[in-house]
Amino acid sequence: MLKTLDPLLGPDLLHALAAMGHGDELAIVDANFPGAACARRLVRVDGADATQVLAAVLSLLPLDDFVESPIASMAVVDAPDTLPPVVQAFQRLAEGFEARPLVVEPLPREHFYARAREAFAVVQTAETRLYGNVLLRKGVVRPEGPH
Amino acid sequence: MLKTLDPLLGPDLLHALAAMGHGDELAIVDANFPGAACARRLVRVDGADATQVLAAVLSLLPLDDFVESPIASMAVVDAPDTLPPVVQAFQRLAEGFEARPLVVEPLPREHFYARAREAFAVVQTAETRLYGNVLLRKGVVRPEGPH
Repeated sequence: MLKTLDPLLGPDLLHALAAMGHGDELAIVDANFPGAACARRLVRVDGADATQVLAAVLSLLPLDDFVESPIASMAVVDAPDTLPPVVQAFQRLAEGFEARPLVVEPLPREHFYARAREAFAVVQTAETRLYGNVLLRKGVVRPEGPH
Repeated sequence: MLKTLDPLLGPDLLHALAAMGHGDELAIVDANFPGAACARRLVRVDGADATQVLAAVLSLLPLDDFVESPIASMAVVDAPDTLPPVVQAFQRLAEGFEARPLVVEPLPREHFYARAREAFAVVQTAETRLYGNVLLRKGVVRPEGPH
């Protein structure tokens, strides 16, 4: 436990977030996701669902504002144009933390897996809602003052 | 870089701070200290002095309020009752972060080494002021509300 930090931010998750640089991706995935099989680096947060973990992560991680869509989801297999409620919740959370509108990019399932395999880290949660997976692209922290 | 965090809090230092529990000790030491030889776990912050690192650490680490003195310094070899300016600066910083008066416990040099060898981690800085070493004992983060 540390002052001011969300208690879901344990040592390994903090290490991964701080080690990431601009453009690196983090996948937050549900309990059905093949995390251990595809992660370069796996962090488990077994006690929380994906929206709780996303909120903890976004309290520290800036999203990339150099690209149109710094968030990607897994498209619903038979209805690729619908955003499931859990993905809508991801979008609302991210828009709140970033204080700007954000477009979520739905990726075909196999593309999502491919991006997760390339991601800096995969955070596996206890999320049980289907399609409770999200890819985040890290942005920059700007210096204060006129730069 | 992460939002809201002091940039001196790199991945390895964050990991150590978050992994520590109540009563675990952290040593922040100067550039002359035999850190690599005595640390169970060494974190280097080569670009900053000990007061800068202490301020970064205390932005997240609560000090123990179960003990009279959660901070120890290395006593001056020929003048054990004087607190060098760098140790006075440690004390002021800690009192500011904790918002309470704190007693610094000066330890004979060999005792300081012994405590550093037992510490959870040693953070070696670029501090050049002699006696620029401090031991911190981690406290607890209390839940919000009536507990």
